Amino acid sequence: MVVRAAVAGASGYAGGELLRLLLVHPGIEIGALTGNSNAGQRLGALQPHLLPLADRVLEETTAEVLAGHDVVFLALPHGQSAAVAEQLGPDVLVVDMGADFRLKDPADWERFYGSAHAGTWPYGLPELPGARAALEGSKRIAVPGCYPTAVTLALVPAYTAGLAENEAVVVAASGTSGAGKAPKAHLLGSEVMGSMSPYGVGGGHRHTPEMIQNLGAAAGGPVTVSFTPTLAPMSRGILATCSAKARPGTTAESVRAAYEKAYADEPFVHLLPEGQWPATASVHGSNAVQVQVAYDAAAGRIIAISAIDNLTKGTAGGAVQSMNIALGLDEGTGLSTIGVAP
Amino acid sequence: MVVRAAVAGASGYAGGELLRLLLVHPGIEIGALTGNSNAGQRLGALQPHLLPLADRVLEETTAEVLAGHDVVFLALPHGQSAAVAEQLGPDVLVVDMGADFRLKDPADWERFYGSAHAGTWPYGLPELPGARAALEGSKRIAVPGCYPTAVTLALVPAYTAGLAENEAVVVAASGTSGAGKAPKAHLLGSEVMGSMSPYGVGGGHRHTPEMIQNLGAAAGGPVTVSFTPTLAPMSRGILATCSAKARPGTTAESVRAAYEKAYADEPFVHLLPEGQWPATASVHGSNAVQVQVAYDAAAGRIIAISAIDNLTKGTAGGAVQSMNIALGLDEGTGLSTIGVAP
Amino acid sequence: MVVRAAVAGASGYAGGELLRLLLVHPGIEIGALTGNSNAGQRLGALQPHLLPLADRVLEETTAEVLAGHDVVFLALPHGQSAAVAEQLGPDVLVVDMGADFRLKDPADWERFYGSAHAGTWPYGLPELPGARAALEGSKRIAVPGCYPTAVTLALVPAYTAGLAENEAVVVAASGTSGAGKAPKAHLLGSEVMGSMSPYGVGGGHRHTPEMIQNLGAAAGGPVTVSFTPTLAPMSRGILATCSAKARPGTTAESVRAAYEKAYADEPFVHLLPEGQWPATASVHGSNAVQVQVAYDAAAGRIIAISAIDNLTKGTAGGAVQSMNIALGLDEGTGLSTIGVAP
Amino acid sequence: MVVRAAVAGASGYAGGELLRLLLVHPGIEIGALTGNSNAGQRLGALQPHLLPLADRVLEETTAEVLAGHDVVFLALPHGQSAAVAEQLGPDVLVVDMGADFRLKDPADWERFYGSAHAGTWPYGLPELPGARAALEGSKRIAVPGCYPTAVTLALVPAYTAGLAENEAVVVAASGTSGAGKAPKAHLLGSEVMGSMSPYGVGGGHRHTPEMIQNLGAAAGGPVTVSFTPTLAPMSRGILATCSAKARPGTTAESVRAAYEKAYADEPFVHLLPEGQWPATASVHGSNAVQVQVAYDAAAGRIIAISAIDNLTKGTAGGAVQSMNIALGLDEGTGLSTIGVAP
Repeated sequence: MVVRAAVAGASGYAGGELLRLLLVHPGIEIGALTGNSNAGQRLGALQPHLLPLADRVLEETTAEVLAGHDVVFLALPHGQSAAVAEQLGPDVLVVDMGADFRLKDPADWERFYGSAHAGTWPYGLPELPGARAALEGSKRIAVPGCYPTAVTLALVPAYTAGLAENEAVVVAASGTSGAGKAPKAHLLGSEVMGSMSPYGVGGGHRHTPEMIQNLGAAAGGPVTVSFTPTLAPMSRGILATCSAKARPGTTAESVRAAYEKAYADEPFVHLLPEGQWPATASVHGSNAVQVQVAYDAAAGRIIAISAIDNLTKGTAGGAVQSMNIALGLDEGTGLSTIGVAP
Repeated sequence: MVVRAAVAGASGYAGGELLRLLLVHPGIEIGALTGNSNAGQRLGALQPHLLPLADRVLEETTAEVLAGHDVVFLALPHGQSAAVAEQLGPDVLVVDMGADFRLKDPADWERFYGSAHAGTWPYGLPELPGARAALEGSKRIAVPGCYPTAVTLALVPAYTAGLAENEAVVVAASGTSGAGKAPKAHLLGSEVMGSMSPYGVGGGHRHTPEMIQNLGAAAGGPVTVSFTPTLAPMSRGILATCSAKARPGTTAESVRAAYEKAYADEPFVHLLPEGQWPATASVHGSNAVQVQVAYDAAAGRIIAISAIDNLTKGTAGGAVQSMNIALGLDEGTGLSTIGVAP
Repeated sequence: MVVRAAVAGASGYAGGELLRLLLVHPGIEIGALTGNSNAGQRLGALQPHLLPLADRVLEETTAEVLAGHDVVFLALPHGQSAAVAEQLGPDVLVVDMGADFRLKDPADWERFYGSAHAGTWPYGLPELPGARAALEGSKRIAVPGCYPTAVTLALVPAYTAGLAENEAVVVAASGTSGAGKAPKAHLLGSEVMGSMSPYGVGGGHRHTPEMIQNLGAAAGGPVTVSFTPTLAPMSRGILATCSAKARPGTTAESVRAAYEKAYADEPFVHLLPEGQWPATASVHGSNAVQVQVAYDAAAGRIIAISAIDNLTKGTAGGAVQSMNIALGLDEGTGLSTIGVAP
Repeated sequence: MVVRAAVAGASGYAGGELLRLLLVHPGIEIGALTGNSNAGQRLGALQPHLLPLADRVLEETTAEVLAGHDVVFLALPHGQSAAVAEQLGPDVLVVDMGADFRLKDPADWERFYGSAHAGTWPYGLPELPGARAALEGSKRIAVPGCYPTAVTLALVPAYTAGLAENEAVVVAASGTSGAGKAPKAHLLGSEVMGSMSPYGVGGGHRHTPEMIQNLGAAAGGPVTVSFTPTLAPMSRGILATCSAKARPGTTAESVRAAYEKAYADEPFVHLLPEGQWPATASVHGSNAVQVQVAYDAAAGRIIAISAIDNLTKGTAGGAVQSMNIALGLDEGTGLSTIGVAP
């Protein structure tokens, strides 16, 4: 059986990464590719690294173009997915790589995105408790945000094991591709090379409520998250440095044991050996997550650090992983744990 | 009056940056330059950016070579400054750019550096309360570490104003020059470009006790600091993302007022207008510090972020600033608040 | 006497670099600053590295605003300088950092810029024979292009000494700031980091006729130039790798002697010692030019390589250097030969 | 049939890239991995991006360890391959990724490498005329150098079609991984970020005779090559800007036709559509080669530019491609034309 997949938003970074992965996925045939202002252009001019698709031409994002596919990936600006999804019918697997269907609390959505809440779909982070069951056979998938993917995988074991107080502090550095391909002055190479800078400081980043939602579920109660994203001079990768106050009785051993248990059988999440620390270069282009954890007894905090590729595990790879589950394929089909380094 | 200055350790990054600054300092005449394994080599081969000094030749680091100068800067590996300083006599201004004389508690020194404590000299961070008075006329100066400079300036106003609880969480990203010029595989360009990675996680970094010392003095009692340094793909710069739990009654206004008061008259520390955030590129090659602060009411934390050039304000510029005070010169002589950007 | 200078186009990279230099120029007082779409904004928001000017507000680029200054720098898009210059009167020193007045042959201008030729002003590359005399006391200066600055200084000694045939091949790598601050997708950090790419291949780059003009003058006859610019993953710097077929009788010694003679007394052009090669990092933020030359006997070519900072010696530093000559100041006033490295 | 492959030199960049490719090659089973000073270490500590091999331990490079494999890849320092190859027997396919067996003229080898010539093996650049026939069934393969791969593929069509005079000028920019993983001060991230610099100028680079050999074969007579390599601030990629004087009668159309004919059926070499230029980012991690060509009528030169990944098509991918031919597999098995971008 060959599954035909369409990609709405094929000219951006998320769409390009998705196509890179689908091209080597043995069960997928790439169908329609759509773009907004780029409709009519050759993909070779927009995504020159995707040589096998160079002569494909982008179409308009319409229901007619997207019809007749088994899977439709939506790599659209926030707030545009619901209208497209409605037209696709209940039998089509719709994978939303935007934020529209991630948040459970409509108030969160409205506060951070400023529009009416579209709903909630099964959440595509298979490593969370219960997530795989919700994804199996589902016809709708909400792909997590890139920062929440990194932060959730770093901190959930500490909460699940009851080791951490319900207050987390997260500082994450992201490559510039996370900010997208629309040209903006502060994202010019001249501006970002040689510079580190924060943004969305003080709780304002839209991924904050998604982290709170995930960590709260693991903790069994409300968790506060102080989240500061920073822009790093690299194209890809997120390094999430997360910490939480340790509960009384926590030891280095209990922390390590919790993480070993959590990730012993996960195909994509690798707890590094003691003494080795994550590096984004090691997961460049890979769906793997490097995790390491320490207990700082003097400061009384658990420090958990994860590295992902924001476009792969953080977006398109996570989407394919969840699609595989939904379609009943092996979860790792078409995905790699091998980074492109140096 | 011309002040003659010698630089011990002129071939490394700290020494090179110091020479870059001394070359434009109107009151300094550059005297002897020494190196370790590099003695006998032309500076032009080692520091090709310092064209006016290209034909100077490095000498051995001996008491004879360093004799006859008014100021001697020590840019030596940790633990080597005391032996050299002893030979220089009490009338020579000795500025130690290493760690040897920063820590007050011998136990801290021994735990983090593994050798006998050499003592404590006046601490060269003029922006701290009382620091300028201690530096005036002093013949010994301990230049702060680069990370402690960034972190202390970010957090001290919150502690001085009584707004923060005594537990701070710091994640800082540093350019690779902070790791020095000795060739190591993990510092190769191939390894660091495109990668973010942490090191010294869990309280092990040697700059941790220095931060605790500074913040504790401001808080009037012991402060815990969870400090995670990360290596960023850039040559220079530190972005320090610092936070502390807010005390009851804290508001965005009280936080901003504390920082405005603290830095209103500081020549090098600039509290940015609201809505603008620090970027290391803006202080590249400059002695300026960009600071911004936010209050995250939902998380109950004060977020203070600073950007410095690790080699300038973080090392050599800080050294010159304190030297100026010790010599009775205007504090900003030879120093710039203008960055080289983009 | 204090000279008052206005800068038209203060929000771009050339304007920002010029202000960085003027801020430390002892004979200049910075007057009006103008921008196009940015009029009314604080300079601190647009050029955050220029802290001493942070509170200055950009004005419109009008004759009224620019009136009353001794010097007016024009950092405007190509083709806009003539109209502004006409309104400034013959007693004002006008320094055009655009291309409008560089080319002598109207046909060249029309072919490469597509509009009517505005004229030719004294050419601001003091190192060329006769250039200083033409600049002294002049009220109009055409600042050279960044690539022509690097290429001309690399090759002119070979032509002046009669060592090279009249055909040059140039491949130059430029930092992204040379492409300006207007946001374009191919200049995003995500696109340029980790990538080298050419543009304007095959003779199409607008700086080609300027190189031909300069080298032809040195050779005393027409010179062909094959010029390929490439975009490098760095913010600043040009490395120009230039070669020309050697005339019969050329030797390594005759080549070196020609370059030593040419640059023995130049304050900003440094012929490196044999065995050392230029690096753009060494001239970062500096007005210096590093030059090195080799004779490849097997290939029969002279290889001359130069490194400059495209924004300093390549644009704003070159402008200040020529302004100094025009005003009768010491040529190096306010300029540095010290790079900011690493 | 499963082919067992050993890799001698698995801890370096070439060895790591080879393992990245072999891990996804459907016909290969990875056998012994050896290192020099790294024997006894876990691969996970040396090549953390190769997660599936993290627990493999490096062995000594001995005949015993390498025995019993169908293919042995040698990623050793220059001059060490012959001694190892002799011990492996004539039935083992030995793929030398070093320079030892590339050059036909012993005098070239001795002049550039300073030791006795080991011999010449079939040359692993399948795109050259006659190369595939020589590789089929061969038990020895000499993998080309990275620069010669890029330059040869850029210029050979011009020579084969008789369009170019026998003198080529090449300026190539390489990522730092081409310089290897041994720590050296000039390769530190602090030194290479933000800098472009040349090396081996004037004909001294060891890849020069290999280019001359390849281009001379295509031209049917001796070709001079002026080759200047430059180091670019990126980890991977080579951009080769090549030009040659055009023979009389050359036109833009004849040039394009020659390249279209040469690469119409090549699986890995892609002549880009007119107006699009190669970028190293587009072939990051891919075995593809992007080529574009122009005719500069004013300068009378053909400009041919290629982009490759120096570690993939330039080393390990080229090795796998030739191995496939030697083993009778489909030439593209296990190789990709999809880059990892941005």
